[in-house]
Amino acid sequence: MKLIKTPVKGMNDVLPREERLRQKALSAIRETYAAFGFDEVETPAVEHIENLTGKEGGENEKLIFRVMKRGAELARAMEKGDELADSGLRYDLTLPLARLYAANKDSLPAPFKALQMGPVWRADRPQKGRFRQFTQCDIDILGDPSSLAEIELISATSLMLTKLFEGTAAESFTVHINDRRILRAMALYAGFPEDRLDLVFILLDKLDKIGKEGVKEEMLREGFEGSAADKYLALFDRERAGSVADFCAFLTGQALEETVPENLDTIIACVRAAAPANAAFVFDPTLVRGMGYYTGPIFEVTLDAYSFSIAGGGRYDKMIGRFAGQDTPACGFSIGFERIITILGDMEQKSAPAGNGVALLVENGASGALMQKVFAEAASLRAGGKRVTVLPLKKNAKFQIDVLMEEGYGDVRRIYKDQDR
Amino acid sequence: MKLIKTPVKGMNDVLPREERLRQKALSAIRETYAAFGFDEVETPAVEHIENLTGKEGGENEKLIFRVMKRGAELARAMEKGDELADSGLRYDLTLPLARLYAANKDSLPAPFKALQMGPVWRADRPQKGRFRQFTQCDIDILGDPSSLAEIELISATSLMLTKLFEGTAAESFTVHINDRRILRAMALYAGFPEDRLDLVFILLDKLDKIGKEGVKEEMLREGFEGSAADKYLALFDRERAGSVADFCAFLTGQALEETVPENLDTIIACVRAAAPANAAFVFDPTLVRGMGYYTGPIFEVTLDAYSFSIAGGGRYDKMIGRFAGQDTPACGFSIGFERIITILGDMEQKSAPAGNGVALLVENGASGALMQKVFAEAASLRAGGKRVTVLPLKKNAKFQIDVLMEEGYGDVRRIYKDQDR
Repeated sequence: MKLIKTPVKGMNDVLPREERLRQKALSAIRETYAAFGFDEVETPAVEHIENLTGKEGGENEKLIFRVMKRGAELARAMEKGDELADSGLRYDLTLPLARLYAANKDSLPAPFKALQMGPVWRADRPQKGRFRQFTQCDIDILGDPSSLAEIELISATSLMLTKLFEGTAAESFTVHINDRRILRAMALYAGFPEDRLDLVFILLDKLDKIGKEGVKEEMLREGFEGSAADKYLALFDRERAGSVADFCAFLTGQALEETVPENLDTIIACVRAAAPANAAFVFDPTLVRGMGYYTGPIFEVTLDAYSFSIAGGGRYDKMIGRFAGQDTPACGFSIGFERIITILGDMEQKSAPAGNGVALLVENGASGALMQKVFAEAASLRAGGKRVTVLPLKKNAKFQIDVLMEEGYGDVRRIYKDQDR
Repeated sequence: MKLIKTPVKGMNDVLPREERLRQKALSAIRETYAAFGFDEVETPAVEHIENLTGKEGGENEKLIFRVMKRGAELARAMEKGDELADSGLRYDLTLPLARLYAANKDSLPAPFKALQMGPVWRADRPQKGRFRQFTQCDIDILGDPSSLAEIELISATSLMLTKLFEGTAAESFTVHINDRRILRAMALYAGFPEDRLDLVFILLDKLDKIGKEGVKEEMLREGFEGSAADKYLALFDRERAGSVADFCAFLTGQALEETVPENLDTIIACVRAAAPANAAFVFDPTLVRGMGYYTGPIFEVTLDAYSFSIAGGGRYDKMIGRFAGQDTPACGFSIGFERIITILGDMEQKSAPAGNGVALLVENGASGALMQKVFAEAASLRAGGKRVTVLPLKKNAKFQIDVLMEEGYGDVRRIYKDQDR
């Protein structure tokens, strides 16, 4: 039989060149977060269908790859017209983490600083840069209600990005910081109705792309008052260079507790104190972050040389508790792993591969004694830290050697069968 | 909503302690095979159902987790009574490698030395030490017909096991080496019918467990001639300490080409020349290896302190070609990754964790200025290579510190809110 050679739609084989980049990134991420006391955990790819379809997954629930029941159970379900799937592929790492935490809370450190890296699956319409299997990288601190959690997360992520991109065009980045409670207080202050705030934030999130005029237009189209829109958008002209407390002075005492901006000022001061020089940390009252589950500080990292964000997160104190059945403060960061790989790939094309490998090419028909010498030599080179490959010498040796040079074997030695070494 | 807290049947969450072992093993494997010029590749978890059910997977095809079609395609399939799955989770790494190779042959090194590590899924009956999602680790050399491939595979695997287990009770191991063609020639010489050789080998494979008498009994029960069984089993009493060529002298010229034992002698001499002291390499004419697709040398590694094999493989020159539609010599090794983790876990319980981490415990209510100092200090300790965690100081500080010590934080410092540092 012959195989269908292409991978299934929207999923990719990873060839050696890209795999090297992926491993390099995974190592840098692992090492950095380990230095901050994060523990890595893994969950199975397959999750209970009941957990996946519990209505906390939002749009992602429409994109589940369902895994069928088997054997007698499948036959019974078909006969009765029941649900044919008993499980599905996980569409994110948050839900499995909540499940793992609920099941193992007592044997995990408290607070639990978790790192997760692994594939997730979404039956999205495939398009450029969007895959149906892709790697997510999440870091979360569960059980710490204090802003130490935010500071550790932002500091660690800043250091990780610095390590990955140092000395390249992508090395400068900005961490935008806001708080959902400030976002909310500003919208209420402007006069928007409380039950339509989510829509207000969706429109505000377009500010970068369509400008103030565009946002106002859409607000009017949605039936919001022009006066509220004007009052709201003018707030973003306020001076931001000072403290967050200064910026928020007009709100505190009304819709906003004083501690909220003070807390953001502390977070920003602390991450600056620990930060690499290539990182900027700014209060950004326009930062929205899409997910409605955030309850406090939110943050997003943009590389200055690129137009997109590379990581984002925030505090979500209610969600884990809903899953686990017990209140659990939580704060997390999600790293755009596939974007990091794309950027690293773009850069690598501009640099030459390391050429310090040794290739030993053995002519067909070499005696056992000669081969023993070759492999003893290979072992000794490897013991000295060299990458060594032993391969058959091809008829077209010149071409073979050229290719090996390109693959990073700068030292190619031919061993002929009659050679007395 | 509340979650189902346990993972789906037969699949496991990996908690920090085990994850550290897994990462340690993955790194040792990666580093070793990289030093031998192997390139890592990855394939998607999901594979075309047509590829998975192409009858090359043997028993595994019964154990496929099927992934359902979606949307209009699913509706159409249900209406027509067609197959409801369009894909499934891979049950091994060999089939996806064959597909990847068939699709990318021209852009891959030739020969292609491949390393794959990743999860596979089988809907097996769950039992102790057997999981429905487990990690496989395969190394293969595609496109090298010479015994350089066998030597590189055995040498690299020996070095990897040495690195993982050096200085422990598991450090000594034996690589058993045979050739399918010798196995076959011996059975034919004894007088077994050619069309029932597979059954002969299945029975021979029980020699370790049920002894010669037991094997003979089963052979008689299967209807084989007693004289063939006697002649066959007596062959395994022949002296094996000399060369393979000496052992096989009675076969060569008849059912066996001379080059076959000579080739094994060269492989054994070369792996010995490059080998660590804790490894033994022996010709073992009783070695069978279950899979019928092997065509030449076969090998299996047993740890001397354990009763089970930890890795095995051999040459399979026909299989990749059947998949890829073009003859491709191939030789591979499969490492029992989950068994390695079990052994490493057993050992770790006997050793204390490294205690060189630093924990900074900050009292609730510390000023922003004090917190900045704390995080600046954390950054400087981390820059010096320390693992540092910053956590809220709990009310029961003594208990908190005891737990942190157990987690490897030997240096715990308390920062009180009124402290002037």
